Amino acid sequence: MSEEQRTEEQRTEDLGFARVDLDRARRTGDPEVVYGAGKTPEQVVAILRTLHERHPDRAVLATRLSEEAMAYVASALPEAEVHAVARSATLGPLPEPRGTVAVLSAGTSDAPVAAEAALSVRVHGAGVDLVQDVGVAGLHRLLAVRDRLEDADCLIVVAGMEGALPSVVGGLTGVPLVAVPTSVGYGASFGGLSALLGMLNSCAPGVTVVNIDNGYGAGVFAARVARAAGPRR
Amino acid sequence: MSEEQRTEEQRTEDLGFARVDLDRARRTGDPEVVYGAGKTPEQVVAILRTLHERHPDRAVLATRLSEEAMAYVASALPEAEVHAVARSATLGPLPEPRGTVAVLSAGTSDAPVAAEAALSVRVHGAGVDLVQDVGVAGLHRLLAVRDRLEDADCLIVVAGMEGALPSVVGGLTGVPLVAVPTSVGYGASFGGLSALLGMLNSCAPGVTVVNIDNGYGAGVFAARVARAAGPRR
Amino acid sequence: MSEEQRTEEQRTEDLGFARVDLDRARRTGDPEVVYGAGKTPEQVVAILRTLHERHPDRAVLATRLSEEAMAYVASALPEAEVHAVARSATLGPLPEPRGTVAVLSAGTSDAPVAAEAALSVRVHGAGVDLVQDVGVAGLHRLLAVRDRLEDADCLIVVAGMEGALPSVVGGLTGVPLVAVPTSVGYGASFGGLSALLGMLNSCAPGVTVVNIDNGYGAGVFAARVARAAGPRR
Amino acid sequence: MSEEQRTEEQRTEDLGFARVDLDRARRTGDPEVVYGAGKTPEQVVAILRTLHERHPDRAVLATRLSEEAMAYVASALPEAEVHAVARSATLGPLPEPRGTVAVLSAGTSDAPVAAEAALSVRVHGAGVDLVQDVGVAGLHRLLAVRDRLEDADCLIVVAGMEGALPSVVGGLTGVPLVAVPTSVGYGASFGGLSALLGMLNSCAPGVTVVNIDNGYGAGVFAARVARAAGPRR
Amino acid sequence: MSEEQRTEEQRTEDLGFARVDLDRARRTGDPEVVYGAGKTPEQVVAILRTLHERHPDRAVLATRLSEEAMAYVASALPEAEVHAVARSATLGPLPEPRGTVAVLSAGTSDAPVAAEAALSVRVHGAGVDLVQDVGVAGLHRLLAVRDRLEDADCLIVVAGMEGALPSVVGGLTGVPLVAVPTSVGYGASFGGLSALLGMLNSCAPGVTVVNIDNGYGAGVFAARVARAAGPRR
Amino acid sequence: MSEEQRTEEQRTEDLGFARVDLDRARRTGDPEVVYGAGKTPEQVVAILRTLHERHPDRAVLATRLSEEAMAYVASALPEAEVHAVARSATLGPLPEPRGTVAVLSAGTSDAPVAAEAALSVRVHGAGVDLVQDVGVAGLHRLLAVRDRLEDADCLIVVAGMEGALPSVVGGLTGVPLVAVPTSVGYGASFGGLSALLGMLNSCAPGVTVVNIDNGYGAGVFAARVARAAGPRR
Amino acid sequence: MSEEQRTEEQRTEDLGFARVDLDRARRTGDPEVVYGAGKTPEQVVAILRTLHERHPDRAVLATRLSEEAMAYVASALPEAEVHAVARSATLGPLPEPRGTVAVLSAGTSDAPVAAEAALSVRVHGAGVDLVQDVGVAGLHRLLAVRDRLEDADCLIVVAGMEGALPSVVGGLTGVPLVAVPTSVGYGASFGGLSALLGMLNSCAPGVTVVNIDNGYGAGVFAARVARAAGPRR
Amino acid sequence: MSEEQRTEEQRTEDLGFARVDLDRARRTGDPEVVYGAGKTPEQVVAILRTLHERHPDRAVLATRLSEEAMAYVASALPEAEVHAVARSATLGPLPEPRGTVAVLSAGTSDAPVAAEAALSVRVHGAGVDLVQDVGVAGLHRLLAVRDRLEDADCLIVVAGMEGALPSVVGGLTGVPLVAVPTSVGYGASFGGLSALLGMLNSCAPGVTVVNIDNGYGAGVFAARVARAAGPRR
Repeated sequence: MSEEQRTEEQRTEDLGFARVDLDRARRTGDPEVVYGAGKTPEQVVAILRTLHERHPDRAVLATRLSEEAMAYVASALPEAEVHAVARSATLGPLPEPRGTVAVLSAGTSDAPVAAEAALSVRVHGAGVDLVQDVGVAGLHRLLAVRDRLEDADCLIVVAGMEGALPSVVGGLTGVPLVAVPTSVGYGASFGGLSALLGMLNSCAPGVTVVNIDNGYGAGVFAARVARAAGPRR
Repeated sequence: MSEEQRTEEQRTEDLGFARVDLDRARRTGDPEVVYGAGKTPEQVVAILRTLHERHPDRAVLATRLSEEAMAYVASALPEAEVHAVARSATLGPLPEPRGTVAVLSAGTSDAPVAAEAALSVRVHGAGVDLVQDVGVAGLHRLLAVRDRLEDADCLIVVAGMEGALPSVVGGLTGVPLVAVPTSVGYGASFGGLSALLGMLNSCAPGVTVVNIDNGYGAGVFAARVARAAGPRR
Repeated sequence: MSEEQRTEEQRTEDLGFARVDLDRARRTGDPEVVYGAGKTPEQVVAILRTLHERHPDRAVLATRLSEEAMAYVASALPEAEVHAVARSATLGPLPEPRGTVAVLSAGTSDAPVAAEAALSVRVHGAGVDLVQDVGVAGLHRLLAVRDRLEDADCLIVVAGMEGALPSVVGGLTGVPLVAVPTSVGYGASFGGLSALLGMLNSCAPGVTVVNIDNGYGAGVFAARVARAAGPRR
Repeated sequence: MSEEQRTEEQRTEDLGFARVDLDRARRTGDPEVVYGAGKTPEQVVAILRTLHERHPDRAVLATRLSEEAMAYVASALPEAEVHAVARSATLGPLPEPRGTVAVLSAGTSDAPVAAEAALSVRVHGAGVDLVQDVGVAGLHRLLAVRDRLEDADCLIVVAGMEGALPSVVGGLTGVPLVAVPTSVGYGASFGGLSALLGMLNSCAPGVTVVNIDNGYGAGVFAARVARAAGPRR
Repeated sequence: MSEEQRTEEQRTEDLGFARVDLDRARRTGDPEVVYGAGKTPEQVVAILRTLHERHPDRAVLATRLSEEAMAYVASALPEAEVHAVARSATLGPLPEPRGTVAVLSAGTSDAPVAAEAALSVRVHGAGVDLVQDVGVAGLHRLLAVRDRLEDADCLIVVAGMEGALPSVVGGLTGVPLVAVPTSVGYGASFGGLSALLGMLNSCAPGVTVVNIDNGYGAGVFAARVARAAGPRR
Repeated sequence: MSEEQRTEEQRTEDLGFARVDLDRARRTGDPEVVYGAGKTPEQVVAILRTLHERHPDRAVLATRLSEEAMAYVASALPEAEVHAVARSATLGPLPEPRGTVAVLSAGTSDAPVAAEAALSVRVHGAGVDLVQDVGVAGLHRLLAVRDRLEDADCLIVVAGMEGALPSVVGGLTGVPLVAVPTSVGYGASFGGLSALLGMLNSCAPGVTVVNIDNGYGAGVFAARVARAAGPRR
Repeated sequence: MSEEQRTEEQRTEDLGFARVDLDRARRTGDPEVVYGAGKTPEQVVAILRTLHERHPDRAVLATRLSEEAMAYVASALPEAEVHAVARSATLGPLPEPRGTVAVLSAGTSDAPVAAEAALSVRVHGAGVDLVQDVGVAGLHRLLAVRDRLEDADCLIVVAGMEGALPSVVGGLTGVPLVAVPTSVGYGASFGGLSALLGMLNSCAPGVTVVNIDNGYGAGVFAARVARAAGPRR
Repeated sequence: MSEEQRTEEQRTEDLGFARVDLDRARRTGDPEVVYGAGKTPEQVVAILRTLHERHPDRAVLATRLSEEAMAYVASALPEAEVHAVARSATLGPLPEPRGTVAVLSAGTSDAPVAAEAALSVRVHGAGVDLVQDVGVAGLHRLLAVRDRLEDADCLIVVAGMEGALPSVVGGLTGVPLVAVPTSVGYGASFGGLSALLGMLNSCAPGVTVVNIDNGYGAGVFAARVARAAGPRR
C-alpha cells in the first residue's frame, strides 16, 4: 500500500453507500455538507452522525431534504436543528459570524431557495440579513431597503421568472452580487432557464450567477467573500 | 373566371417579383408596408411607387432597408423621407396623430428598434413620445420620466440583454405595455432569446411581447390601441 | 424607522407566508390577484379574506387553483364564486364592464386558458364575448363570427399545437389582438413552445403574445385596452 | 475481386471527388440528382455531364446552385436549362407528366423553395400547378383557388415564419398534403424552426413535413404520389 | 341569425364539453375521430355515441385512450371494438379497403404507435400490411420483407431512438414513405427529438415526417395516398 | 422642469449617439467603461474623451474594440494605452491596486478573454496575477501554481470547450472563484454553451459564473471582492 | 416461402410481445441482452428464460429493471443473479474474463450507471476494476489510483453534473477512454445534457462518449476493446 | 523556484503566443498535434518547427488548417507533407503501423472529416483502410465491403445529416466502432446536432461518439485501440 493510499484512508470514511470526505475543511476552510437529494432518511442521518463525530466542534449541514428526511433527522438526532423553509438541517454549533451577507428574494415562491442560501451563509461563517419579497414590479419595497444593501459585504439576490432583480440591485450598489435563478415560473420559464439567462445577461456589471435553485452554492461563495472582507469601507 | 377571381385581381397588382396587396387598409385600417429585408433597392422603390400611386393621400412605409436601399430610395424617390436610425423610409403624408404611444428603450444599442417602432406608430396614425436610455441599471433616469409614462395611451418598451425593463415599467404604471426584445447582447443572449424569455416571464401583469427586433409589429399594435383610446382617464 | 419604511408597512400586510400588497390598485388601477399555484387551500383562503377585508367593494381574483383549493374556497368563503373551467375564484362584486374583449379559442382543450382569460377581463373591468372552438382547420366556424371580432375593442386569441389562429384572425381584422399560446399538444409541441414560436412569428402585423397558458396576463392587458377605448370607431 | 464488388463497379462511376450512382432509377424509379451545395461549378458540370451521357433519354437535375454554378452550367452545357428562381438546372428531356401536384406558397420570400419543389415534381414525372402568395393573413386569395386544390393529386404547401398555411389548407381539402417549412423569418423563427414546429403540430390531420427549405424532397415525394394516382375520384 | 350561423348549427352538435364536427367527411372524405387524451371515459363514450348516431353506416375512431377509457368503452358500447395495443377503439363498420399501406416498425417498443397507424389506415379506407421489428441493427429481417415494401401503395415507417429506419427503407424502394418518430429512447433522445431530427434529415429522398408518436396522422395521410392509387405499376 | 430632471442633466451628457453616465463611480465606486462592440472608432474616441475630461484623475476603460477602433484610439488619443490581446484601451491613470486577483486560463485560445478580465481587474482597483495555459488535461501545470491560488483574494478561471477548469481549481482551494466560459470550441460547444453549462453545474461548491466571454464582468466582480478583502488570513 | 424467410424463422422466436433475436452472438460475438425498461416483470422473465434455454452455456443480461422486475426475477428464476445497484440481472455462467476495463465514477450518485457498465463489461467477456468516488473536486483520490488506470486495457469514466472527470483522466493516461454522462444533477444540468456536452467537448484527445446513463453501451464497447487487446504494452 | 516549477520549464516551451507541451508523448504515448483553427499561418509553422526540432524522429500533425496556412506550410517547411482533403499537414516520419482502423464515410461531403480521421490514425501509429461513400440509402455498397469491416481492429464511421450509418454498421459487426457526426446538412440538421443525436441514440450496442466534425479525436482513440489489439481473433 502506497503512502498516498494510506493518507487517502485517513481522509475518508466508507459508509458503504458513500465515501465521506473528512478532510474538506482543511483544504477549503469550509464545513462538511450532505446533499440530501436522492438519499434515504437513514442515509442522511448516518452521514450527519459520522461527520459530526469527527468534528463535534463545528456545524454539519444537510440540504435538499425531503419531508421524510427532515422528520427522521428531528427524531433520530434530537440535537440537530431542522430548518423547514430551507429544507435543511444542521448539527453542531454554528460558527461565529464574520462579515454580513444580505440575501434578497423577489417573491414568496423564492423563499425556500433564499432560506437555503441564508442558512448556508451562516454555516459557512458569515452573518445574514434576509430581505424578502422585493420584486422589481414593486420598486418602492426595494428602494426602502437600500441602506441594508450598502451595509453588506456581499449580496445574494434570488429570483425566478424573468430574473430581473439582480440587474436593478446591481445598478443601485457596488457591493459584490451573486444572483440565484429559481425554477419559479411556468411555460416559457422552462424550469428556470429564463431567469438563468436573464441573470447571465444582466446589464449591471459585476453580477455573477450560480445554477438554478442553487442557494447552497451562492451561500458558500458569499460567506467566503464576507468572511475575508476587512472593516467596512 | 369566377367573381371571386375578378375581385382578387382588383385587390392586388402583380409586379413580377411580388403580388402587392392594394386593399389592406380597407380590411384592417392600416397603411401599406414594404418589408425590405431580402429585396433589392430596385424592388423596394418599385413597390413603394406602386403603392403610393394607388393611395397618394396616405403614407407608405418601407422597413428593414439596407444602406444601399436607403440611398437608392433617397435618389429615386426624392419626395420620400428616409429615416436612417430606423433603417426605414416613408412616402406620402403621415396621418394626423390620434392618441400617444410612449416608446422607451433600455440602451443606446436598442435605438434602431425603438426608432422603427416609433416610426411605425406615426405611420399607423398615433403620436409618439420617445424616451431613450432608461435601462434598469440606472433607475433614476426611469423614475425621472414617470409622468410621461402615465400620459401615454400605450407603451412600447424596447430592451435587449436580460430584457428587464418591461417588468420595472409594468410595476410603475397600468398603461397597456408592449415589450420588444432586441438581439442586443452576446454569448448566452442567444440572439435575443434571453430578452424574449425575460419579457414573456415578466412578473408584472399585463405585459405582452412581440418577436425579437420587431419594432414594426409593436408599433402597429400600439398605434391601434392609442387611436382607439378615448379622452384620458 | 424611516418615513419610507413606515409607508411600506401601511401598504402591505404580512401573513407569515406572504407579504400582501394592499396598494396595487392605486398604482396600476387593477384589482388584487392571488396566484394559487403552489399555495395550500388554507393559504389561498387566507389571502383572499385579507384582501377582501381591506377592499370589500371590489373583486379579488384567485387563479390556478387546484381541485382541493376550489373546494375549500367554496366551503370556507360561501360568498366567493368558484369558476371551475377557469380553475379560479372571485370574491367581491365584479366591476361594471367598460368596453368589450372578444376571447377566441381554437379547440376544446384550450377552454381552461380561454376561461381564465375571460374571467380576468371581467375582474379587470371590461366585458367579454367568448367564442370557442374556432380552429383554423375549420375556417367556416371562424368566418361565421367575423362580425363579433369587429365589435370588440380588443381580441384575445387562445390556441395550442401550431398556434395558427392569431395569424388568420389578424388577417381578418385590425382590432388589437393578444395571442395566448397553450400547452395543448404532444411530441414536438414541447409544452407549448411550438404555439409560442408560431404566434411570435405571425405574418399578420400587430399580434402580441403572452407566456404559455397565461390567460390571466392576456386578460389584464386586454381589459386595460378595452376600458380605455372610446366610443366605437 | 468478388462478384458483389464487380457489380458495384458497374453501378457507379468514380469522378475522383464523387462516386456517382448510375443505377438509382432502377432501384427507385427516380432520375439522377446533383446536390449542388458545397460543390464547385466545375464539379457540378462534370457530374451533370457524366450522368447525362449514361442516360441521355431522361432529365438530370442539379439543385442548390450558386450564382457562379448557374452561370457556368449555362455556358458549359448550352443544352442545359437553368431555372434561376429555383437555383437549379436540368439537362435532358423532362418526362411526360402523369398526375398533378399543386404547389402553394405563403409569401414572395418563399418563392425559391416553391420553385425548387415545382421543378423537382416535373423532373420526377408529374405535372405542376403553381399557386403563389396565398398566405393565411389574406384568406380571400386562398379561398379563391380552392378548386385548384381539389383538382390536384397531391399538394405541396410552402411557408416560413409561423408556417400556418398547411393547417388552413389541410382543413379545406382531403388531398394528400406535404408541408415545406422555409427559413424565411427572423428573430424567434430560429432559421425555420418555428415553421417546422408549426407544421409538425398541425391541427389538420394528414399533414406530413420535410426538412426546412427542402423543396426537392417534397417534390420527389409528391411526384411519386401523383404518378401513382388513378383517374380522379 | 345569419344564413352562415344557421348552417353552422347543422354542421356541429354541442355536447357542453365539446362542439362535435358532424360534417368533416363531406369536406375531406375522412371519418370522424375522437382524440381521447385529456378526455374522461364518459366524454369519450358520449362523443363516440353522438358521432355514431349521425353516421351509423361508417366507423368512428377514438385514439389515445387511457386504460380506464378503453374499459369503459368496452362496457358502455358493447358493439365497439377496442384495440388494446393501439390504445384505440372503433365503432361502426370499417370501410372496404382500397389500396395497401405497409406499416413497418423498428422495435417492439414502437408497437403502440405502429398499431395506431395501422388502425387509422384501416378506418380511413385502405388495407394494411404490418411488418414489425425490422430495425436497422438487424438488416437481414428488413431485407427478407423487401417484396412486401414494393407491393404497397404507401409506406409508414415507425422508429424511435435514432430513427434510421426510414433512410434505409427509402434507399430500397421508391414507394411514397411517411416516417413516424416515436418517443422511445432515453437520455439524449429528448422525448423523440432525436428520431424526429434523424427523419427530417434523411439522406433518402422523398421521406416525409409527422409529429412524434403521431401514428394517427401518418395513417390518415397514407390511406389517402393508397386509396387514390391506380392499379399497380 | 422638475428637480429630478435637473439632477439628471448634470449626471449625464448627451453625445447625440449616446447619453453618457458621468456619475456611475459615485453610485457603485467603479470607473467609467465604454462597451465598444457595435460602435464606430469615432464614437469610441468621443466617449473616451468625454469621460476622461470629466474625471481626468482616473482611468476610463474601452472594451471589445475592433482592429480599426484600436488603431484609431492609438492615433487620436496618444495618451491612451491600447491592450491588443485584451482588445481594449485605457485612458487616464490606473488606480493603486488593493488586494490581488489571480486570473487563470485553460488554453491559448482563451487568452483574449483572460486579458480582458485581467485589465478590468486593474482598472477597477485590484492587482492581478495572470496564470495562462493551465488546462485540466495537463494537471501538472496547474498543481505547480497552487501556491499562487492561495495567495489571491479572488480567482477568475477562464475556460472554453468543456469548461472543467473551475471544478478542479475549486476543489484545490477555498478562495472565492468566478468562472468565465469562453466561446472557444466547435461543434457541440454551441458557441460556449457547453462551457457555460459545465461551470454552472460544477461539483465544486462556491463557483459562480458570468456570461460567455464576459471577462469584463468577471473582472469588475473580482476586483470588488479583492479591494474589500482585509489582510490575508 | 423464400430461403431468406426460412432462415429468418430459425434466427428469431416470436413471444407475442417481442420477436427475440437468437442469433446475435454469431453476428457480433456478444451475448443476448434484455432491455427491461417498459417491460412487465413477466415479460422480462419470459425473455430471459427463452434466451437462456437456447444458449444455456452463456450468460443473458437484463438491464433497467424496476424493483418489481428484480423481485420477480429473483423468485421466478432462482438460478438468476440480481445486481441491485446495477438494476440488472444475469442468468447463466459469466464468460472467462479476457483483458481488464477500469470503471471510474465521479460521485456516489453515479454508482448505478457505473455498476451497469461494470456488469455489462463482465457479461461481455472482460474483467473489471471498479474505482468509485474519484470526482475532480478531490484530485487526491484520483491521483492515488493512477496506476490502476495504466493497468487497464480500456477505461469507462462515469460522471454527472459538469462531466469533467474524463478530461482530467484523459490527460493522465493514453488508455482508450469511454465517457458516460449521467443524469445526476439539477437545474441547468438539463437531465444530463450538461455532462454530455462537457464530455463531447473534452480538451483531452481520444475521449469517446455514449448516451446519457448508458452504462450498458459503454460496457459493451469497452469489453470488445479489452478482449481484443494483446499482452500489455 | 521550486522543483515542480523547474520541471515544468523543461516540459514546455513558450513561443509568446503559445506554451508548447513538449512532453505529451511520454504521458500518453501520442505524438504532438497543432490545432490550426484560429492560428495564423506563421504561428502554425512556428509551432510545427519547434515540436519537430525537439522530436525529429517522429511525426507532428497540424489540423484544421486554412488554405493560407496549408500554402504557407508547403512553402516554409518543404519537408512537410500537406494533406489537402484533410486540411492538415504532417512533419517528420510517420510511425510504423500496428493494427488497422477502417474509416467509413457516408457521403462525399463527409470526405474532409474522414480524411482527418484517417490521417490522425496513421500519425498515431495504426494502419488505415478508407472506405468512402457507403451511405445507408445505398445498402449494396456497404454490404459489398463487409469483409473489410471484419478485418479491422477498430472502425471509424463518419456521417452527417441523420447519422444513421453507425447503427447499420454496428448491426453488421462486433468490431469496436467510433462514430463521428459531421456538420453536413442544412435546416433541421442544426450544424450536425441531428447526426450527433442520432449516433448517441444508436440502437446498435457498443457505438461511441465524438464531437461534431472531430475526425482527429476519433483517429486518436481508434489508433490506441488498434495498436493495442493482439493478433486477429
